[in-house]
Amino acid sequence: MNRIYNFNAGPSALPLEVLKEIQDSFLNFNNSGMSIVEISHRSKEFESVINGTKEKVTKLFELGSDFEVLFVQGGASMQFAMLPMNLLKAGDSADYVNTGTWSTKAINEIKSQNRKFNVVASSEDSNFSYIPKNIKFSDNAKYVHITTNNTIKGTQWHSLPDTNNIPIVADMSSDIMSYPIDAKKFGLIYAGAQKNLGVPGVCLVIIRKDLLNSIGDDIPVMLNYKTYAQKNSMYNTPPCFSIYVMWLILKWIEEKGGLSAVYQENKQKAEVLYDFIDNSSIYTGTAEKDSRSFMNVTFLLKDKNLEEKFIQEATKNSIGGIKGHRSVGGFRASIYNSTDIEKVKYLVNFMDEFQKKVK
Amino acid sequence: MNRIYNFNAGPSALPLEVLKEIQDSFLNFNNSGMSIVEISHRSKEFESVINGTKEKVTKLFELGSDFEVLFVQGGASMQFAMLPMNLLKAGDSADYVNTGTWSTKAINEIKSQNRKFNVVASSEDSNFSYIPKNIKFSDNAKYVHITTNNTIKGTQWHSLPDTNNIPIVADMSSDIMSYPIDAKKFGLIYAGAQKNLGVPGVCLVIIRKDLLNSIGDDIPVMLNYKTYAQKNSMYNTPPCFSIYVMWLILKWIEEKGGLSAVYQENKQKAEVLYDFIDNSSIYTGTAEKDSRSFMNVTFLLKDKNLEEKFIQEATKNSIGGIKGHRSVGGFRASIYNSTDIEKVKYLVNFMDEFQKKVK
Repeated sequence: MNRIYNFNAGPSALPLEVLKEIQDSFLNFNNSGMSIVEISHRSKEFESVINGTKEKVTKLFELGSDFEVLFVQGGASMQFAMLPMNLLKAGDSADYVNTGTWSTKAINEIKSQNRKFNVVASSEDSNFSYIPKNIKFSDNAKYVHITTNNTIKGTQWHSLPDTNNIPIVADMSSDIMSYPIDAKKFGLIYAGAQKNLGVPGVCLVIIRKDLLNSIGDDIPVMLNYKTYAQKNSMYNTPPCFSIYVMWLILKWIEEKGGLSAVYQENKQKAEVLYDFIDNSSIYTGTAEKDSRSFMNVTFLLKDKNLEEKFIQEATKNSIGGIKGHRSVGGFRASIYNSTDIEKVKYLVNFMDEFQKKVK
Repeated sequence: MNRIYNFNAGPSALPLEVLKEIQDSFLNFNNSGMSIVEISHRSKEFESVINGTKEKVTKLFELGSDFEVLFVQGGASMQFAMLPMNLLKAGDSADYVNTGTWSTKAINEIKSQNRKFNVVASSEDSNFSYIPKNIKFSDNAKYVHITTNNTIKGTQWHSLPDTNNIPIVADMSSDIMSYPIDAKKFGLIYAGAQKNLGVPGVCLVIIRKDLLNSIGDDIPVMLNYKTYAQKNSMYNTPPCFSIYVMWLILKWIEEKGGLSAVYQENKQKAEVLYDFIDNSSIYTGTAEKDSRSFMNVTFLLKDKNLEEKFIQEATKNSIGGIKGHRSVGGFRASIYNSTDIEKVKYLVNFMDEFQKKVK
């Protein structure tokens, strides 16, 4: 059916079996006689979808009973604004680590709200090519904000910093559900769905109940996490289709054997691609080796003049989404959970053939 | 394929031909080799979808060049908060008309922001069963807020109030694109998509350019209409699938002959159903006759003891979504654009058979 090898950074490839399930049941969801996009969010059919999604998130991340799982609209960018509104009271301060475009935007948002914050570490000095180490956090910070994976720069935190029990607030938009986590280190996790959780239109928010309970009422209803917790994320009509796809994706992860299994495959995929790049003569990686992302592999052609030809040849070989982010150029292969090792090997094979051709 | 007669208030029935188009192209959109849910929002394929949607809104509503068309997440409820933030400066005041649940929520939101406003008319005295007339608006109001159709109470404005050139800000969530409008009376129109514009996850916002240009910068990025206008509603990843469905729905409206044709059919549908109710012995309408909605027809059984039997029989006859809103009870048939006259006649026939059976 002429499907391509899709390495888009997000929206990105979905597992073909999930797409087919959506397609097959699209005119009649679960014998309701309606499409999933036509059923009421107050129906028992949709309630089982939203509650099932929450249960799967709780189980896969081993959250126990300390966290609430919420579904918010507006993407991670809306979270940049909601975090300080909800988590800081007058006089409170937060620590931020700046590892690239998205961290910078999160920092700009707390800044524009005239709240106290400290940028306690940044890799801007090196074009965000690494994850800072040995960070000294503020004693009085209410939370420490990090971006676990930097889609644009191709870097990733491979272990969490020691924050001395200050809760970590993490933007996990581009590596959520790609490895197991230690939930107790987090105060809040958020992630736009369009990479490892399905399609755009919903942002998963996981918040520790003690933080949730300390939120005030002086926040617009739709911007207050408590509204979502109290109304099972259905104060108003939620983005039903995006939540439905997240449910299918999490089911698919469970069927693959859960996050440990997914992590093993992700590590292996990244190794195959990075090893090839490191041993090639015409390609070079852009992130420092110990900070490399296993979700977004960024690389350059040593000879910039070959860039256009590379894209042309890639397109001819049914490879899409391989261009780097418009703000940095170069190339990027996004190899999220849905991209299996065979697709990565196909890409490596293409890159190898291209190298032989141009040398 | 066992599809039912779906009278849900939202999410609600979609035209079968639109559902089939989504289904047929779901694995390969427009020969991209990717699903519509997998393509990048920065791709030429998606740009033609989002720009096409804007063009169709502009054309169907005859907006000319005075308005910007935006796509925002969070539903109409998020707009309740964004309106005063964006449209009022310190000291400014707005007028609100209270015609039911959604107007009340919009009023609560401006109140919680500690801004000046006047509720210049309300039908709360009569359980919101009518649209107020002969309203005296404030001379200094920056805008007048109305809810054009009240999904829960089944009332609708059939002509716009004379606001003496104060721009009308209208929540049209449940009757947008069901009749032609006189655009120049509006300053801003907003509508959640899940009734006449497709599926939840996107809120259409149409704003007059002079109002847009007067918005300040002291608003979080994702809550400022200017962000959406400046970035073609793609500051971050938009809810691509919901915009895509809106595009298909607007195309379908165009193919039906535009808003005048749609309006004729909608009037006819409502007449058939209201005429039957008015001439029946066991049913009674809840809204005052001159304020009746032609989108949401609310009615009661005079004998409350028959309610459960009515729902049971309806379900047996493949009729769904006919229960009234949980806050008011009774019954409601939502007959949006997608519900054609044959489906309304099927419902009337069922109600008639039920009446014969129980009398």
